[in-house]
Amino acid sequence: MNDRPPQAAHITLSIDGARLWQSLHDLARIGATAKGGVCRLALSELDAQARRRVIDWAGQAGCSVRVDAIGNIFARRAGSDPQALPVATGSHIDTQPNGGKFDGNYGVLAGLEVVRTLNDAGIRTRAPLELCIWTNEEGSRFAPVMMGSGVYCGAFTLDHALAARDRDGVSVAEALAASGFAGDVPAAVADGAQRFAAYFEAHIEQGPVLEGAGCTIGVVSGALGQRWFDVTVAGQEAHAGPTPMPLRRDALYTAAQLMQQVVEIARQRAPDGRGTVGYVDVFPNSRNVIPGRVKFSVDFRHPDDAGLAAMEAALRAAVERIAADGKVRIEVQQVVYFPPTPFDAELQESIRAAALARGHSQMALPSGAGHDAIYVARTAPAAMIFVPCKDGISHNEIEDAKPEDLAAGANVLLDAMLARAGIA
Amino acid sequence: MNDRPPQAAHITLSIDGARLWQSLHDLARIGATAKGGVCRLALSELDAQARRRVIDWAGQAGCSVRVDAIGNIFARRAGSDPQALPVATGSHIDTQPNGGKFDGNYGVLAGLEVVRTLNDAGIRTRAPLELCIWTNEEGSRFAPVMMGSGVYCGAFTLDHALAARDRDGVSVAEALAASGFAGDVPAAVADGAQRFAAYFEAHIEQGPVLEGAGCTIGVVSGALGQRWFDVTVAGQEAHAGPTPMPLRRDALYTAAQLMQQVVEIARQRAPDGRGTVGYVDVFPNSRNVIPGRVKFSVDFRHPDDAGLAAMEAALRAAVERIAADGKVRIEVQQVVYFPPTPFDAELQESIRAAALARGHSQMALPSGAGHDAIYVARTAPAAMIFVPCKDGISHNEIEDAKPEDLAAGANVLLDAMLARAGIA
Repeated sequence: MNDRPPQAAHITLSIDGARLWQSLHDLARIGATAKGGVCRLALSELDAQARRRVIDWAGQAGCSVRVDAIGNIFARRAGSDPQALPVATGSHIDTQPNGGKFDGNYGVLAGLEVVRTLNDAGIRTRAPLELCIWTNEEGSRFAPVMMGSGVYCGAFTLDHALAARDRDGVSVAEALAASGFAGDVPAAVADGAQRFAAYFEAHIEQGPVLEGAGCTIGVVSGALGQRWFDVTVAGQEAHAGPTPMPLRRDALYTAAQLMQQVVEIARQRAPDGRGTVGYVDVFPNSRNVIPGRVKFSVDFRHPDDAGLAAMEAALRAAVERIAADGKVRIEVQQVVYFPPTPFDAELQESIRAAALARGHSQMALPSGAGHDAIYVARTAPAAMIFVPCKDGISHNEIEDAKPEDLAAGANVLLDAMLARAGIA
Repeated sequence: MNDRPPQAAHITLSIDGARLWQSLHDLARIGATAKGGVCRLALSELDAQARRRVIDWAGQAGCSVRVDAIGNIFARRAGSDPQALPVATGSHIDTQPNGGKFDGNYGVLAGLEVVRTLNDAGIRTRAPLELCIWTNEEGSRFAPVMMGSGVYCGAFTLDHALAARDRDGVSVAEALAASGFAGDVPAAVADGAQRFAAYFEAHIEQGPVLEGAGCTIGVVSGALGQRWFDVTVAGQEAHAGPTPMPLRRDALYTAAQLMQQVVEIARQRAPDGRGTVGYVDVFPNSRNVIPGRVKFSVDFRHPDDAGLAAMEAALRAAVERIAADGKVRIEVQQVVYFPPTPFDAELQESIRAAALARGHSQMALPSGAGHDAIYVARTAPAAMIFVPCKDGISHNEIEDAKPEDLAAGANVLLDAMLARAGIA
C-alpha cells in the first residue's frame, strides 16, 4: 500500500484513444480476413510478423525486449527503483482461424498505450512496467491453450509444450525456431519466484453481460472453475418401425433427459454457475433407427469448487436415477478440470476505484473463459479489466467493440498500474 | 368364399423345412459377407446373379417366368381355371449393404417352397399361383424404397423410378439394362385392374414382439401409417464460458425437450403408436460453444390416421408451448407420409385359421416397417405372415431366425394360399 501515491496525482492523465484504435487496426492488417476479422495462428509467419511489429513499437517507446524459451515476449519500461518488481500487463496476439481484431490484441496494445502515454507525459514510475505477449493463448494450432502463460506459471512443462504438434506435424519447438522466437530467457517460474509485483490484463468481455447491463468497466472477480465430462449412453439400436415403445432401449431419449438436466443444474446456480452441452454424437444417426449410442459433452463452470462439486454430484444423481430401470448404461468421464481462480482483491479494488474516479459505470463479474491472467495469478497478484464487445460475440470475424469503451478500459489500466507502480 | 375347400382336405400336406433352409443358405452365398450376412444391392451384378438363380429354381419347379419394365419378376404355376386370377406371394431378394439372409429372401423362398411342395404332392390348384420378386425393396442403392411394388401399384410412375440414380450416377434404367432385367411386361397397374385374387407375404418380423411373446405366427393386421418431420431449432451460438444461463438462446436445450416429447407422445399411444428421433445434427457441435442450431428427425407411426394426426398435433402443441418465450425459433416440416394400410380381414382370418389348425401359437400385430405387401394392398386383397427373428434384429449381418419358425410360417402360407386358390 505504501507504493501507492494518492489518486489525485494522476487523475488528469489520459491515454490517446485514437492512437490505441489506430494501433489495433494497424495490427489487424497482419492476417486480415475478407470479412473484417484476423487469422493469425500461433507461431505462424503472420504471428511472427505481428510480434515483430509490436516489438518495434515497444522499442520505439523505449522498452527493452526479452523473449523466453516458449516465445513469451517481455517488453520492459524501466522504473526508478532497480530493486522493484515490475508491474506487468499484457495478453496475446495470436488469433482463432476466424478471429477478430480485439481478442488478446486489445490487452497488449492497451498496455503499449499506457507506456506511450507515460512517455508523452514524461512520467517515470518507481517500479518498472512490463508488457507481456503470451505465446499461443488460443490453442487453435497447438494444444494446450494458454500455452505461454501455462509454461510460465508451471501449469505444465516447457518440454511438454515444445513437443506439441499442429495437424501438419510441425512441433512448437520447430515453429519457434522457424519464427525466430525461441528466446534465451528461462521460460518457467517453477522455482515459485515472483517476477511481477502485479499483473493486469485488459480484455473484451467475450460475453453479453456488460453490454446487457449498459456498463463500461467489468471488474473481474476471478475465473470460473471448470469441469468437463464425456457422457456416453449405450442402449440398443433397433428399427424404428417394428419396435414397440415398451421394448425400446433408446439411448437418445435418455441422453435428451440428461442434456436438459445439465442446463437445469446450472440454472439453479445462476448467474455464475454455467452448464453447456455443446457436442452430441448419435449412432447410427439414421432417421428410422432407434439410436443405440449417444455421446455428448458436459461443460460445467462455477466460481468455487464446492459449487462445481455440487453440479457434478447433481449430474451423477440424475444419471443414477435415469439409469435405474436398467434399459441403458451411462458412463460419465471427467476430461478437463480447471480450478476456480479468484483474482487479487486489492487489484480488483484499484480497478474499481479507477473506474469510479473516471466516472465510468462498473460492475463485478467473473470470467467464464480462459485467459493468460488466470495462469499468471498462480505466480503473482493478478486481475482483469473487461470492456463490452458487441452482442457478446468473440472468436468470430464480426467481433466488434466501441472505441470509447476500449479507451475507458485503457485509462483504468493506466490508473491501476500507476497506483501499483508509483510515480518516481 | 366358394373358392375355398374344407381345411381338412390339405391339413396333412407340409412343406419341407430342410429344403427351405437349404435354399435360404444357398441363395445367401451370393453376396455373402465375412460376418455371415449378405450384401446384394438392388440391380447389382450380385442381385442379377441371385435373380437368375431363383428364376432357375422356379423354372425347374415348372413355373413360367415374366419380367416387367421395372424388373419385377413373376413366376407362375398354372391352375386349372384359365379365367382365375392368380393367388400370389413373394417379397424381395435385394439386401441392405450389411443385410441378413432372411429379410425378403424368406418370403420369396417360402413361396417357392409352396410350389415345390404342391409339385411333390401332385396337387393342382384351381387358380394359378404366382411368385413375385419385387425390385429394390430396400432402397439402399436407389430411392425410393419399395420401388418395384411402388411402380406396380401406381404409387409413383415408372419414369420416376427409372430416372433414380445411385451415388455413382448410374440410373435404374441403366442398371436394369446392364443386369438384363428390363422386362417387356407393362410395369404398372395404373388402370386399377386387379391382377391378383390375393397376395400373401411371409417375412421375418424384424422386431421383438413375437420372440418376446413366445409366439410363432404373427397375423399382420396392417401397416402403421407414418408421418416423418424435420424439426429445426434456431437459437444463438455463443461461447459457453462467458454467457450466463439467463442470457442464452440454447438451441439444444429446446431440442432436447422436444426429443423427449416425441417419445412421450408415442408412449401415450403404446403399443402401436411409435415415435423416434433417429437423426440429430448440432451446429457448431463444439464442446464449449452453446449450440446455435439443432436439426433433428421425427418419425411417428400409428395404425390409424386419426392417431397419427393426434401425434402431430401434440408435437406442434409442444413446439408452441416451448417456443412461447421467444428465445428460439422452431420449424416443423413434414417430409414423409405413408397412410395406414389395414390388411384384408378375410386373408388375415385364413392365416389365423391355418396357424390354429397346425397348433402354432399366433397373435395379431401390425407391421411397423414398410413391405411390398403394403403397396400391393392398394391393388388386391393382401396380408402378411410374420415369424420371429432373433432379438428382433434385422438390417444387420447377424440377423437370424429358427428353421422351425421359418417352416411354420411357410406351412401357414401354404394353407392360406391353398384355401384361396382351391384344389382342382
